[in-house]
Amino acid sequence: MAKAMVAAPTMLSRPVTFVTGNPKKLEEVRAILGDSIPLQSLKLDLPELQGEPEEISKDKARMAAKEVNGPVLVEDTCLCFNALNGLPGPYIKWFLQKTGHEGLNNILKAYEDKSAYALCVFSLALGTTVEPISFVGKTLGKIVPARGPPDFGWDPIFQPDGYEQTYAEMPKEEKNKISHRFKALDKVKAYFSAGDTALTTDVSK
Amino acid sequence: MAKAMVAAPTMLSRPVTFVTGNPKKLEEVRAILGDSIPLQSLKLDLPELQGEPEEISKDKARMAAKEVNGPVLVEDTCLCFNALNGLPGPYIKWFLQKTGHEGLNNILKAYEDKSAYALCVFSLALGTTVEPISFVGKTLGKIVPARGPPDFGWDPIFQPDGYEQTYAEMPKEEKNKISHRFKALDKVKAYFSAGDTALTTDVSK
Repeated sequence: MAKAMVAAPTMLSRPVTFVTGNPKKLEEVRAILGDSIPLQSLKLDLPELQGEPEEISKDKARMAAKEVNGPVLVEDTCLCFNALNGLPGPYIKWFLQKTGHEGLNNILKAYEDKSAYALCVFSLALGTTVEPISFVGKTLGKIVPARGPPDFGWDPIFQPDGYEQTYAEMPKEEKNKISHRFKALDKVKAYFSAGDTALTTDVSK
Repeated sequence: MAKAMVAAPTMLSRPVTFVTGNPKKLEEVRAILGDSIPLQSLKLDLPELQGEPEEISKDKARMAAKEVNGPVLVEDTCLCFNALNGLPGPYIKWFLQKTGHEGLNNILKAYEDKSAYALCVFSLALGTTVEPISFVGKTLGKIVPARGPPDFGWDPIFQPDGYEQTYAEMPKEEKNKISHRFKALDKVKAYFSAGDTALTTDVSK
């Protein structure tokens, strides 16, 4: 692989495109990453892939980098049940849509083990010819019957370890301190802000 | 959409590429479709998509037609549980791999309704600029604890309606008469052999 180690300023002269159709997400990412990274957002209609969470995310970053022809950041979220060896995982969206909170509890009914983890994967592709880098945030917890406002995805059925509340019941600021999403973004931030960390970027174009 | 109605011989002067890495599958398809359709096989490393079964199949046909730059036939199989509104569906492969036959029974434990259907979708793209056509075969049945030789996918846990045996327990010839796969292929065959059915093909190249 042809790689070049460059200092951050060189890389950052080109804004990173965060792939999202949700302006609130861009704000959230910007709030955590700070001003050091020039960031813009773009809604792209990319195909959703099957596979392992990190591979899905990396493939998405590759496709996005090709579309944008520049550096991109993409995000994916999974909810993984240990009794089901990590499933529904990347397919959680379909299970939520088709079976609801009750269905998600039901598919675990045969198991004593209700433990689960929320996974967030950000993948950064600095160009079309370099391998994307993934940043994974993981929050451990368990699946419970829905509690709290039902309006944000599977938040009502996920109770993080060490808490009596579900994601949905927690004050947003508290959730944001321990969430899978925050942990992943924190790693993205650390990557960009490490002054002595040389960045691998695509110098082929 | 720019379409042209042409007689079968024109279209058939160009062989249809059946996308598979499995030579046995090609033989099976050839056996059912007969010699009337020039068929060749090719293994393509296409991304697996998420979504509704027919859409996944059509997208796959579009990608394959682009790769091959000619007419293609692709195949997808799903196992859909009614209690889970059609899931695992296109993700059955991952559930089988990660939770096995027992896991697939377990996720239905909370439900009295064990009914399911096996779905096979063939999609035919006659070129890169025409909309693919899908042929869907569906066999109704129910999910049972595994019975029969365990070596072919989820066959041991699927018992078709009107039979006392699972797919795995049935003699192959008998299974092939009622299988979701056979039903889908039968529709492909009917499509090709209908002498008076004009075929829509890509005349742009």
